[in-house]
Parts: sequence; structure tokens; C-alpha cells
Amino acid sequence: MDTMEMMKSMSMDDMPQGMTMDMDAMQECMHAMNACSMAAAMCAGSDMMKGAEMAACCAMCSNMAEMAQATMHMMMRPAGMDMMVMQAMMTACMTMAKACSAECKMHADMDEICRYCAMACDDMIMKCEAMMASMAA
Amino acid sequence: MDTMEMMKSMSMDDMPQGMTMDMDAMQECMHAMNACSMAAAMCAGSDMMKGAEMAACCAMCSNMAEMAQATMHMMMRPAGMDMMVMQAMMTACMTMAKACSAECKMHADMDEICRYCAMACDDMIMKCEAMMASMAA
Amino acid sequence: MDTMEMMKSMSMDDMPQGMTMDMDAMQECMHAMNACSMAAAMCAGSDMMKGAEMAACCAMCSNMAEMAQATMHMMMRPAGMDMMVMQAMMTACMTMAKACSAECKMHADMDEICRYCAMACDDMIMKCEAMMASMAA
Amino acid sequence: MDTMEMMKSMSMDDMPQGMTMDMDAMQECMHAMNACSMAAAMCAGSDMMKGAEMAACCAMCSNMAEMAQATMHMMMRPAGMDMMVMQAMMTACMTMAKACSAECKMHADMDEICRYCAMACDDMIMKCEAMMASMAA
Repeated sequence: MDTMEMMKSMSMDDMPQGMTMDMDAMQECMHAMNACSMAAAMCAGSDMMKGAEMAACCAMCSNMAEMAQATMHMMMRPAGMDMMVMQAMMTACMTMAKACSAECKMHADMDEICRYCAMACDDMIMKCEAMMASMAA
Repeated sequence: MDTMEMMKSMSMDDMPQGMTMDMDAMQECMHAMNACSMAAAMCAGSDMMKGAEMAACCAMCSNMAEMAQATMHMMMRPAGMDMMVMQAMMTACMTMAKACSAECKMHADMDEICRYCAMACDDMIMKCEAMMASMAA
Repeated sequence: MDTMEMMKSMSMDDMPQGMTMDMDAMQECMHAMNACSMAAAMCAGSDMMKGAEMAACCAMCSNMAEMAQATMHMMMRPAGMDMMVMQAMMTACMTMAKACSAECKMHADMDEICRYCAMACDDMIMKCEAMMASMAA
Repeated sequence: MDTMEMMKSMSMDDMPQGMTMDMDAMQECMHAMNACSMAAAMCAGSDMMKGAEMAACCAMCSNMAEMAQATMHMMMRPAGMDMMVMQAMMTACMTMAKACSAECKMHADMDEICRYCAMACDDMIMKCEAMMASMAA
């Protein structure tokens, strides 16, 4: 089951009239958001067992997992696509990813999952920037 | 079981040092976000049965439900509180609520649940504005 | 904004033909699930700051919050109602609530939020039992 | 970013004492749940635009997306692992997947995304069965 292939079934024709975006960029973005959401959820689940010094990491990764997922789901609902909302949500998601990546990097030496999570955050930020650059209403 | 009473157990002492916000304003905000998330989820569930002319309403309300909830959950994780992230997420949530409320008002005459949902969105926007006005880092 | 009032806009007419359940019992159940999901999310957020001895509580409450919410959302989508699925999901939710309540009760003396969470779990179990007793396909 | 590789960082050592399961089977299960959750979310988002005859598909796929995700997240929180809860949740998830797959297959001829979603549900059921067969407390 290849999720990238599934996403190719989405088409620009489904988007509200007058809205422009690069569909390939959006699909790469959704893929990166999914990977980020999974990495962050795993990181948070792992942090719970490590004690209070991982409290910020656990909370930020829990937030990240939920936000990346909500943003990806928004992209999966073309009928409700709104340029202003999408830009605000992607901005929030990228702001969270920068904070989460910075936090995870502080313990990336000790924790393999934190290292993965920071990489997934950074990759998602890059894909979001590419998608936002392609958007116009 | 009174959720407002539960929320009173959260205290400013749990917030990261140097961050200031009105805890009463935050609790009212969380309460409004929960009501908005429920109203939007019910509205989306009801839209599904009404046909393609409710597609935008269904998609927007589904987005609204997920975003209001993610933002409320963020407030419930004091260890990960970050002023920049919180402001970006609240901005995204309010932008969504304005779009969702405008959509729901278009069919508020016919659909009681759309009328409720628009009211819940508007109320949440007001509570978010009050909370944001009280925030400082 | 009164969420109980909103829920009264749902009607048995929306349910798939041949399915029977007490709508009042379902609305009380949804209300209890929402309260439980909020209490559990707050409990998990608070646990993160308390160290590794609260790891099980944090993980179970995070699971509880997500399951209570998914079950409540299922009730908000009448078009997809399926008796076998609903019974399996409610059974899973109640099994989780029993485990979560037992865990929270172990530290209810020290933590007010754990005490609330256990109460919210117990109340939800009771409301689920009442609703399940009223269901027939 | 390879999510399968990330999941390999989870280890049996993190599981509560006395619990046995095949970690490879669990990781394959999480992978299949993620693919199923994404396919179902895309299917629901697409259904919204297709009118009332897709109401059941839209509602069931929305339920499926949320349940597969909640079950996957549960597997990512080893500290809260409970055999009874896990079995009940996996049973609920498989019951939902059977109903969702049956619904999607009814319009798999017309809708590519429905065909994908049914395949993702069926694959997840298979992986859940393999994992459940490996579990013991």
C-alpha cells in the first residue's frame, strides 16, 4: 500500500475555483506531515518513560503530532479549501515544527527517536515552504 | 462532572517561567474551543446526509473541529507552552472560525445545527481575542 | 453555549433504518465521553511534568482521551452508524476507561486532576452501559 | 524519511513486564494502520463533494480514519500498554475496517479512492490478525 500513489488520485479539479497551488508540492507536503506526525507521536510516547526532564519534549511532540495531522487532513478536504486558513494553519504548523525540532535536537545525542523527530520536523518545514511558494488565490 | 471546575486545577505555576497570561481567560477559551469543536463535528456529521451543496460546510466544519481541539489540547500541556507557537495556532484557529462561521450562516435559516455552529465559532473567536490580549512573554 | 442543547438537534430519524437506541441515553453518553476526554487530556498534560513514575498514567490518559473522542465522534455521524461497530467501539472505550480509572485512583490522593479523571471515566462507563442496554438492530 | 525505520527504534524492553508480542508484527500493523487512516481520510474528503448517496461512505471512512489512528497511537505509548485494552481496541478497529471495506467496495468501480481505501482496510485487518495471534499477557 503506497500512500504517495493514493495521494496522486487528488486533482486540482477538486480545488475551489480561482485557487492555484502545485499539486505535487501539496502531495509531498502531506507525505512529510504524515511522517512528522508519526515521528512526533512516537517521540512523545517514548518521552513519557524518561522522566520530568523530558516534559517539554513530550508536550511539544504531542502538540506537533496533532497539528501536523490536522494540517494534512485539511489538505485532504478540497471542498473546504480556503487560502487564508491554509496559510495560517501552515504557518502555525511550521512555527511548531521549528520549536519542536529545536527541543528534540537538545537530546538528539542520547535519543535516536528525538533525532528522527527533529529530521522529520525539518523536512516538513522545507516541504511546507515549497508548497506555500506555489500557492495563489 | 463539570469541565470548567476541572480546568480550574490548572495553575499559572505550571507555565514556563517568564510567560504571562490570564488563566481565567485561558480556561474560558478552552471551554469555548471544546463547545466549538463539538458543534462543528456535529454539523459536519449532519452535512454528510444533505448532499453536495453542503460539501464546503462539511469540509470546513471537519477542519474546524480538529483545529479547535488541537488548540485546546495545546493549552492542556503547560510543559510545552511556547508563546510564538500559541499565538500562531490561535491565529489559525480564529481564521478558520471566521470562515466556518460565514459558511454556516449561509444556511443557518434551514439548519439549526449550522446556526449553533456559527454561534459557537463566534463565541470562540471572542474568547480567543480576550486570551491573546492577556498574553505576554 | 450549551452542548447538551446542541446535541438535542440530533434525531432518531437520522439513524439507519432498523436501528433502535434511546436518543437521550446516547446524548448523555456523548456528554460523558466529552467530559472524560477533556479530563484525561488534562491529566496526561499534567503527568508529563511529574516524572517517570507517572508514565503509565500519562500514556493511559492519552489513550483514553483519544478513544473517548473517537467514540463520541462516531455517534455524531449518523449516516455511518453500524450496530456491530458501535458495540465493539463502546466495549473498547469502557475497557480502556476501567484501566484508566484504576490507574488514576492509585494517585488520586496526591493529584486532584487524577481524582477528576477517575470520576469522569467511571461516569462514562455508567452512561455507556445505559446506552448499550437500549440498543437493538 | 522512512517511517518503518523510525518504528524499529521501539523495543520489547519498553513493554510492561509479562507482556509478549511480536514487535515486527506490531510495526507492520502500525504501518498498515497509518496507510488505512490516510486512505480513509482522503476517501471521506472526496465523498463530501459527491452528494448524499456517499453519506454512509463518508461517515464510515471518517470513523475509520480516527479509529485506525487512535489504535496506532496506542501502540506508540508502551508505558500504557494493557493487553485487555489493546485486544478490545484492535477488535473494534477490525470490525470497523470490515464494514468500511464492504461499503467502499460497493463503489470501487467508480471511485479509485474507494478502491484504495478498501484495499488499505483489508490489508490492515490481515496485519491486525497477525499481531493479535502473537500477543500474550
